Amino acid sequence: MSIDEANKTCLQRIQESTAVWSDIKTAKDVIPGMTQRTVLHAGPPVAWEHMCGPMRGSITGACIYEGWASTPEEVEQLAISGELEFDSSHHRNAIGPMSGIITPSMEVNVVTNTVHGIETYSTLYMGIGKVLRHGAFDDEVITKLCWMNKELAPLLKSALGRAGGIDLKSIVAQALQMGDELHNRNKASNALLLTALVQHLISVGEKNEVVKAIDFIDKAGHFILNAVMAGSKGMLDAGSNIENSTIVTALARNGHETGIRVSGLGDRWFTAPAPMIEGVYFPGFGPEDANPDMGDSAITETIGLGSFAMAGAPAVVEYIGGTAKFAMETTLKMYEITVGEHETFKLPPVNFRGTPLGIDIRKVVETGITPVINTGIACKRPGVGQIGAGLTAAPMECFTAALEAFVHRNKS
Amino acid sequence: MSIDEANKTCLQRIQESTAVWSDIKTAKDVIPGMTQRTVLHAGPPVAWEHMCGPMRGSITGACIYEGWASTPEEVEQLAISGELEFDSSHHRNAIGPMSGIITPSMEVNVVTNTVHGIETYSTLYMGIGKVLRHGAFDDEVITKLCWMNKELAPLLKSALGRAGGIDLKSIVAQALQMGDELHNRNKASNALLLTALVQHLISVGEKNEVVKAIDFIDKAGHFILNAVMAGSKGMLDAGSNIENSTIVTALARNGHETGIRVSGLGDRWFTAPAPMIEGVYFPGFGPEDANPDMGDSAITETIGLGSFAMAGAPAVVEYIGGTAKFAMETTLKMYEITVGEHETFKLPPVNFRGTPLGIDIRKVVETGITPVINTGIACKRPGVGQIGAGLTAAPMECFTAALEAFVHRNKS
Repeated sequence: MSIDEANKTCLQRIQESTAVWSDIKTAKDVIPGMTQRTVLHAGPPVAWEHMCGPMRGSITGACIYEGWASTPEEVEQLAISGELEFDSSHHRNAIGPMSGIITPSMEVNVVTNTVHGIETYSTLYMGIGKVLRHGAFDDEVITKLCWMNKELAPLLKSALGRAGGIDLKSIVAQALQMGDELHNRNKASNALLLTALVQHLISVGEKNEVVKAIDFIDKAGHFILNAVMAGSKGMLDAGSNIENSTIVTALARNGHETGIRVSGLGDRWFTAPAPMIEGVYFPGFGPEDANPDMGDSAITETIGLGSFAMAGAPAVVEYIGGTAKFAMETTLKMYEITVGEHETFKLPPVNFRGTPLGIDIRKVVETGITPVINTGIACKRPGVGQIGAGLTAAPMECFTAALEAFVHRNKS
Repeated sequence: MSIDEANKTCLQRIQESTAVWSDIKTAKDVIPGMTQRTVLHAGPPVAWEHMCGPMRGSITGACIYEGWASTPEEVEQLAISGELEFDSSHHRNAIGPMSGIITPSMEVNVVTNTVHGIETYSTLYMGIGKVLRHGAFDDEVITKLCWMNKELAPLLKSALGRAGGIDLKSIVAQALQMGDELHNRNKASNALLLTALVQHLISVGEKNEVVKAIDFIDKAGHFILNAVMAGSKGMLDAGSNIENSTIVTALARNGHETGIRVSGLGDRWFTAPAPMIEGVYFPGFGPEDANPDMGDSAITETIGLGSFAMAGAPAVVEYIGGTAKFAMETTLKMYEITVGEHETFKLPPVNFRGTPLGIDIRKVVETGITPVINTGIACKRPGVGQIGAGLTAAPMECFTAALEAFVHRNKS
C-alpha cells in the first residue's frame, strides 16, 4: 500500500469513528493493567526524577486522595522507593489534561467508539484555578475530588445509563458552529451537554444533588473537555497502526517533553523538550511562574479541534490571547500540514469547510509549520495550580525524528 | 439640541438600558387598555379588510382559544361586525413575532428595562412549523396553546420568581460570541437560558412537568426569541421621543405593510407595502405559497441583532440561505446606516467590534442601503403555518417619507 493509500485508509477509519460518553466506572475496574499502585500521567513516559513541579504536585494530591501518603515528603519517598508504577495514560487507553494523573480509585468517563469497538477513559473535569491536574493538592482540592468521585460520578453514571449514552461527536459538530474550538473554549458544548443530560439527571437524582451537579457542570465551563479528549483518542486510535501511514495519531506533553506517535510507526514516541507557552496570565502571575507545555489535551488539535478549529471560535482569543484575524489564519495554516478535512466537524466562517484533519509528518517537515496548540498554563511550583492560558506549538524535532524513522522503517 | 446631539442622547439611553425577563402575567392584567375583545397584532395598525391570510388565520386561532368563536366563518363575522378591537401591539408596550396576535387571556413574558423603568410584553414562543403566529389554528395548535398558557406559563412564572429574573442582555451578549444572531439563530441563547433556568425549574416544579418543559424549550430552539424581542423593544423605547433624533426606534411589518417609527417623530408610523422574502423553503413549499414580510421581530435588527449581527453567526445561512461571506458583508453594510456600535453586544469575527446600532433615516436615504431583515416565511393561506425562512429588506419609501416628515417637522 502506498503512503497516500495508507493515509486514506487511516483517515477513513478516523472519519467513520464515533464518540459516545457511555458510562462512568472506577479506574481500577476498567483501565488495563491498573495495579493498586499504578499512577498514570499525561504525555510520553517520564520518570519521577524528570517530572516537573505541577506533575509532582498532582501525584502528591492523588496519593493523599488514595490514602497512600499524607505529605509531599511521604509521596516523594514512595516515588523514589519505586513503589509507585508510573506509566503514560496513552499506553492504557486513557488520557488526561495537564498532568493527567489517574490513580486506581478515581472514577473515569468511559467513551466508546462504537464503530471500531474502542473504549477510552479520562477522569472528571475539575474546573479551573486550584485543581489537581495543574498540581494543586491542598484540603480544598482533596475535598472537591472526594465529592466528584463519591457523589457526582454515581449521579452522572445513573443519568448516562438512563440516557443510553451521550453522542459527543454530534455535540462537538454543533458546538463548532457555536464558537467553540473544543479545547480552550467549551461554552457551547458544555451547555449542549447539560441540555442533553438534564432531564436524565432530574429523573434519577434527588433535587438538591441534581441542582448542585448542574451548577458545578455549568460553572466548571469546560466539564465536557475530558470526555471529548477521551473521544478524540478513541477516534484517532482507530487510525493507528496503519502500515505506511504518515499521519500523527497522538500529540502529548508531560511538562518535560512533547511526544508524537505516527500511525505507520506503531506505539513508538518521538520526543523533544516541551516548549514554553505564549499566553495570558491570571492576576498575580507571569511568565517567570510558568511551567513548560503539559498535558494530553493536544489530542483535540490532533483530531482537528483546538487551534485547528480556531477560525470558528474567534472569542477564544479573549482567553488565550491573539486576535480574530490570527484565529482565522491559524486554521488556514493548519490546512497546509494536514491530509484531509473533517466530514462532520465543519467551520461556518470558512464556508462550512471541514476542520483540518490528519497531521502529516511529511507536510510538517516540508512546510516548516508545526501544529499550533491552544492550552492552559500551570505554575511550575507544585501546589499552586493554573495561572493562565495561551498558545504554543509542537517542536519540529518530534516530526523530523519521526520522518527519519519512517524513511528507515524497513531497514531496521 | 442638534441632530447629532439628539442622536447621541437617544443612543446613550438605548446603550444603558437593560432587559430582564422578570415575570409571566396574563395579558389582560398587564397590557394597557386590554379590553375583553382586544386583539393586538404585529406591525403598524391594519384593518381586518387589509389583513393577510396568515394574520387572519392567527386571529381565528386566538378567537377559538378565547372561546369567542369556533369556526373561521364566525371569526370573520366577529371581525366584520366591529366587535373585535384591533390594535398594533407597539401601541400597548407589547410585541409579537409574525402575526403577533395577543388576546386577553394569553400569558405574556414580562421584560423589564430596569434602568428606565419600562415594562414590555410578548407571548410565549411556540416552536416552528404549524404554529399560531404563522396562521395555523387547528386542534393541535389550540391544544398546544392551552398547555403553554395553563401549564408551562405558571411553572416558568414560579421559576422566574425564584431566580429573581433572568438577565437577557447578558445572555444576548454571550450568545453573540456563540454563533447566534438572535433572530433566526438562537441555539446558544436558548441553551444559556435553559442553563440559567433549570435549577429554578427543578426547585419549584414536579419532576415530570419540569422534564416536559425543558424538553419543549430545548426542542423549540428559539424559545428565547419572544422575550428578547420584548427586551429589544424595551431598550429602544428608552430612546424614543428624543426631539431632533433621526434614529429608528421601531421597524415592524403586518404582512400588508412595513412601518418604521423615528425617535424625533413620536409615535407616527411611516409605511410602505410589505416586500416579499428571498428564502429557503420547507419541503413541499415555494415562493408561490409565500406571504409578504410580516412580524415585529425586526425589532432585533433595530437593536443591532439579526442581520446586523450576522457576521458573528455564519451558521444562520443554513436556515435562511446565503454564504458566510454574505453574512460578514451584511453586518459591514449595516455599519453604513447606523450612528453607533453597541457597547455590550460584541462580534468576535470583526475583532469584537460592537454590533451596528441606531439606524439613521438620513444615512439610509443618503446611502440607498435599507436595513436587511432575517425572517421566517409564512404561507399566504390561513391555517398552514411557517413554510420557510429567508432575507428581505425594509422598503426605502418608509425612510424617505420619514425624512420628509423630519425636514418639515417644525413647519406643520
